[in-house]
Amino acid sequence: MRFTSRTSYDGVTEQLFTLSFTFGEIPGVLWTPDGAAGTRPLILMGHGGGRHKQAPDGVARALRLSAECGFAVVAVDAPGHGDRPRSEEQHRIIAEMRTRAQTGGELTPLVTALHTLLAGQAVPEWRAVVDAVQELDHVGPGPVGYWGMSMGCGLGVPFIAAEPRVRAAVLGLNGAETSAEAAAQITVPLEFLVQWDDEMVPRAASLALFDAFASTEKTLHANPGRHGEIPAFELDSTLRFFTRHLG
Amino acid sequence: MRFTSRTSYDGVTEQLFTLSFTFGEIPGVLWTPDGAAGTRPLILMGHGGGRHKQAPDGVARALRLSAECGFAVVAVDAPGHGDRPRSEEQHRIIAEMRTRAQTGGELTPLVTALHTLLAGQAVPEWRAVVDAVQELDHVGPGPVGYWGMSMGCGLGVPFIAAEPRVRAAVLGLNGAETSAEAAAQITVPLEFLVQWDDEMVPRAASLALFDAFASTEKTLHANPGRHGEIPAFELDSTLRFFTRHLG
Repeated sequence: MRFTSRTSYDGVTEQLFTLSFTFGEIPGVLWTPDGAAGTRPLILMGHGGGRHKQAPDGVARALRLSAECGFAVVAVDAPGHGDRPRSEEQHRIIAEMRTRAQTGGELTPLVTALHTLLAGQAVPEWRAVVDAVQELDHVGPGPVGYWGMSMGCGLGVPFIAAEPRVRAAVLGLNGAETSAEAAAQITVPLEFLVQWDDEMVPRAASLALFDAFASTEKTLHANPGRHGEIPAFELDSTLRFFTRHLG
Repeated sequence: MRFTSRTSYDGVTEQLFTLSFTFGEIPGVLWTPDGAAGTRPLILMGHGGGRHKQAPDGVARALRLSAECGFAVVAVDAPGHGDRPRSEEQHRIIAEMRTRAQTGGELTPLVTALHTLLAGQAVPEWRAVVDAVQELDHVGPGPVGYWGMSMGCGLGVPFIAAEPRVRAAVLGLNGAETSAEAAAQITVPLEFLVQWDDEMVPRAASLALFDAFASTEKTLHANPGRHGEIPAFELDSTLRFFTRHLG
């Protein structure tokens, strides 16, 4: 793990890093409260499809989780996203998605194929990121939470199923097709967000994924609006949820 | 409005009262913070079917809303509930519900009939209760919120549709059959609770009622469990919701 920059704003220290792993260099960013010392909860955030580790809404969420809750927060570019090269297979699937989006074809099988392809790489990478970050003195081996919407949910579900250090997660904006099997292995408390008028994820598929989780404590929050229009008050709820389960 | 008793516990003053109205005496209870003076938000709570104005969960909720948020909270016995006589028609419907519950018949048409019958009386009564309570110096003409689950939702929906003083509501555990038409007239912010394994209200009917509300800000919270098993953390959410919209 190699740190490349360090900045501080709003009481939070942001450190850019790269981590060498099987599939190449993973670019990442770690947020911790200024002057943090000792073990604290760690939130791993997974970004959406076509986005990257420093998307503005992700940065805003990380700053609040760190400043208000005292957590460490880490995000990395998913395989083929941000500063990372796309594989041939990924190029092929994305090109086909664009074609079908124009011709009105069925997107779900391609989304499923893409998430499956990327999860095979992301799950071991993210476990390695948790390993590396938890070795830092100002993070340490505390409880881990996961936050991910859309593709961040599609990749997050198999990650959580594989990673016993994750104790609670906020997921959403994704359907059962890509991850129902892994969802059935998840038993940690969940908050699951659904956009009631989601143009990308059918409502029934969202409800089916919520159904699939084995967790006894799981809450579905549904709000009107399209895929990207989660209301701001849900971030307050996310902070309280992680504080209750990791704090 | 005639007060019959006054008690204080946990920093909250509880006053029992009766209000004379068209259909006879309405027994009620008002909670306000000890020493309250001046105008404050008022929450009207509607109890569930077969219950009454001082059901233990209702009292616990009222104490928190009053002590932690500084609100006034009022609850009255619904028509034919608590200390109030049942009408012949109500007796007939309830007897038929018991028969069908034993024989496995369809309950929804009877629940609809009962809610329609009671709402015709409860809606004008509750408006009169708000009138009377808001004339008190320590309540005053502040914003009004409504909380009601199950029958409290079935009667609450037409009440909110008829009462412009209501600015926000927490509803749930009821389906579209009894109140979809009134729901379409409601535009205030809503928090709507669904029990995912509700044995009394079909999941599709709950989702259809959530759909029917015209409110642009409405959030559905679904949790695993049966009709009466709303998790405790939803009360925290209720307090924050009313504080955000009425506080």
